[in-house]
Amino acid sequence: MSETGSPPSTAIIGAGIAGLTAGKMLGDYGIPYTCFEASDRIGGNWAFRNPNGHSSAYRSLHIDTSKYRLSFQDFPIPQEYPDFPHHSQIKAYLDEYAAAFGLLDRIEFGNAVVRAQHHAEGGWTLHTADGTARDFDFLVVANGHHWDPRYPDFPGTFTGETIHSHHYIDPREPLDLHGRRILVVGIGNSSADITVELSSRATENTVYLSTRSGSWIVPKYMAGRPVDKYGAALPFMPRRMFRWMVNGFAEFISGNPEQWGLPKPTHRFMDAHGTQSIELPLRLGCGDVTPKPDVARLDGRTVHFVDGTNADIDVIVYATGYNITFPFFDPDLISAPDNRIRLYKRILVPGMDDLAFTGFAQSVPTLFPFVECQARMIAAYAAGEYRPPTPEVMEQVITEDEQMYTGHVLDRPRHTQQVDFFTYERQMRVSELPEGRRRALAGGAAITQRARA
Amino acid sequence: MSETGSPPSTAIIGAGIAGLTAGKMLGDYGIPYTCFEASDRIGGNWAFRNPNGHSSAYRSLHIDTSKYRLSFQDFPIPQEYPDFPHHSQIKAYLDEYAAAFGLLDRIEFGNAVVRAQHHAEGGWTLHTADGTARDFDFLVVANGHHWDPRYPDFPGTFTGETIHSHHYIDPREPLDLHGRRILVVGIGNSSADITVELSSRATENTVYLSTRSGSWIVPKYMAGRPVDKYGAALPFMPRRMFRWMVNGFAEFISGNPEQWGLPKPTHRFMDAHGTQSIELPLRLGCGDVTPKPDVARLDGRTVHFVDGTNADIDVIVYATGYNITFPFFDPDLISAPDNRIRLYKRILVPGMDDLAFTGFAQSVPTLFPFVECQARMIAAYAAGEYRPPTPEVMEQVITEDEQMYTGHVLDRPRHTQQVDFFTYERQMRVSELPEGRRRALAGGAAITQRARA
Repeated sequence: MSETGSPPSTAIIGAGIAGLTAGKMLGDYGIPYTCFEASDRIGGNWAFRNPNGHSSAYRSLHIDTSKYRLSFQDFPIPQEYPDFPHHSQIKAYLDEYAAAFGLLDRIEFGNAVVRAQHHAEGGWTLHTADGTARDFDFLVVANGHHWDPRYPDFPGTFTGETIHSHHYIDPREPLDLHGRRILVVGIGNSSADITVELSSRATENTVYLSTRSGSWIVPKYMAGRPVDKYGAALPFMPRRMFRWMVNGFAEFISGNPEQWGLPKPTHRFMDAHGTQSIELPLRLGCGDVTPKPDVARLDGRTVHFVDGTNADIDVIVYATGYNITFPFFDPDLISAPDNRIRLYKRILVPGMDDLAFTGFAQSVPTLFPFVECQARMIAAYAAGEYRPPTPEVMEQVITEDEQMYTGHVLDRPRHTQQVDFFTYERQMRVSELPEGRRRALAGGAAITQRARA
Repeated sequence: MSETGSPPSTAIIGAGIAGLTAGKMLGDYGIPYTCFEASDRIGGNWAFRNPNGHSSAYRSLHIDTSKYRLSFQDFPIPQEYPDFPHHSQIKAYLDEYAAAFGLLDRIEFGNAVVRAQHHAEGGWTLHTADGTARDFDFLVVANGHHWDPRYPDFPGTFTGETIHSHHYIDPREPLDLHGRRILVVGIGNSSADITVELSSRATENTVYLSTRSGSWIVPKYMAGRPVDKYGAALPFMPRRMFRWMVNGFAEFISGNPEQWGLPKPTHRFMDAHGTQSIELPLRLGCGDVTPKPDVARLDGRTVHFVDGTNADIDVIVYATGYNITFPFFDPDLISAPDNRIRLYKRILVPGMDDLAFTGFAQSVPTLFPFVECQARMIAAYAAGEYRPPTPEVMEQVITEDEQMYTGHVLDRPRHTQQVDFFTYERQMRVSELPEGRRRALAGGAAITQRARA
């Protein structure tokens, strides 16, 4: 409950998985809210060909989380789904989730938030695509972190065609990629999937894969079980012991990337989000993909690499990740340079009591129950049943959490948001929510209500 | 040396890997020979789009033997080759092999043996495509065992399109396989490769995989090493112990096929040639391929399965293996019903001293040094430096060898020819060749020379 006894008027930006779960939980707690979605449909990234342009799904995309880890905790994934569902099945699952909890009625489709104006005394005015402006007490930002393509800044000019993985659909769309000389840049999951697809001999392409840093290649199955079924021991073991144990088996699980011509990973096996691909090592081992180190410079159709080699290329596919972007915020208020944004529990900004984020983490091995877990805290907060510690303590915890989750990994935009789901979820359930509840009971609600509805 | 002191005039049918290695070894032993090849090129199965129609290679085919096991013992495979070379690289390797040993001069290209006529008193008359007939003392049959498509005999009629894997090139050739409902029948390596290729979401096909018996799905890599690097201990351990040991790890290595909806294998892990595919379990686990049991009957466009389910299908791909066929022999003289042919060391016919076969085995994990090993015995035999035991002993050894190699496997055409390479090669080197040499020294040469050259 708030200071006035009525719940804060709440707005959610985005109806992808993070916005949907936030809406579901807010509804559970009886918080009135409006969800603004630029598109005509829910699903965000998982709505293939999403008209809002924010889906990075390609035709062949399957989620890299098994259905066992993917399932929402309060809406079990269909039993008959395959181990690693296709994007169309994820979308159907989200549609059923939205229907089951009556979420669609609370979403204004085709009405993007153009500008979110923060008031010094607290509260927000949201300017939306339909030309109106509305006030809210509390703003939940769920606009996603996989839609604004990040490009590397290579010296020189390339005169062939370029495309970012965000725009890749299949070998025929948007470019005809048959019989071409293709360079894929990057070593994330999209890169692996697209490299495998384009290097099928049936396409008659010649494919190079350039990567700056190495990555361990993690199979989707180990001993016939989805690998992510093996991770749940993490919160119950000293993390150093778990890392030490798994690192010892790294080459057994993953093989040595150097053997396939990829750079030696500069981190240890468990210390950063690996690339999930069972097929990429095979394609490298079959000679269908030629590994290359980082690009040194571009010169017309020729790409020069840092090892002094070069290759003539028709098409560069940049599978180089995404920027975290908030087009509706004044950058002086909130921005995420180099994908860094200091958030308490990846949710709250110290010193701002009327703003929450959800979905801004690379939660390993699963994002779906992770955003559900975040939504639980957001809804409890809006309902006055949770209150964060003081801004000073929040800052200190943010630094400690960063150290725990990412202190041992590479200082790269790709890894800034890494979180171990099992550890996060357990901490939230066992300590953060109960302690926040005690703080709320002791000190009242935190969200100031000044919205001029 | 022969009874007359001069070597027997020798003919080889076929210039694939078996015919080439036989020719190389005969040359080494100074045996004059002529190789007859229907095509305009060497390579047989490994000559993609071979004009003789005997290549089953599809565009994306990579050999399922790693280069470490693939290499001929007397002609090392290029160091720079990938772990699992593409068919075009195998062909290049064979071209280099033929050039290095001057084999091309001994091959009559475009001149198939139409009829091989055996004379009661020994020796052969070969009738060739150019209309001539020539006599030889000794005939080496190397016409291959992967070119005559085998089709199952399902009740009913299918009115869609059908194709055998032998004729499959890629998703565009010879049929346009995009957006189609496709049933692949069979669970061998070709089936796995073609199923994976056609089930790529980029093709927009709907793919079913029907298999009668189960098969263990073996990865190409284990702990980052090609799996076939692990098998060389076989001849030095009691075979039962080796099988017991590996069977115990079966699910760890391979996963349980039932988990992906495939039938439970009716044999144990090590007891039959598994299907090598790292991708098929993934496609099944992603729901891109729907597993089905054996076909019960065909009815127009509908295929009924033995579990009572059915599916509407546009195209059936029969990846159902090959018949062993000798079109040039009178079937009363030599034939291989159900792919069974009793050959001493998979080479000699008891009671016929002027005939040898090579390449008629499913040698695991590698066929290349296997045919080299067979060629060594054939050449020693032709040179009078090897002599087999009596026909009675040969019959007994054939039965014992069959029991050892295939007594524990399924009674199916696919498995009749299975041989463990490491065991075969060691037996040949350690006992068969030295003993055959002693027999030759004791009893003179075996090949009667009556050729009317």
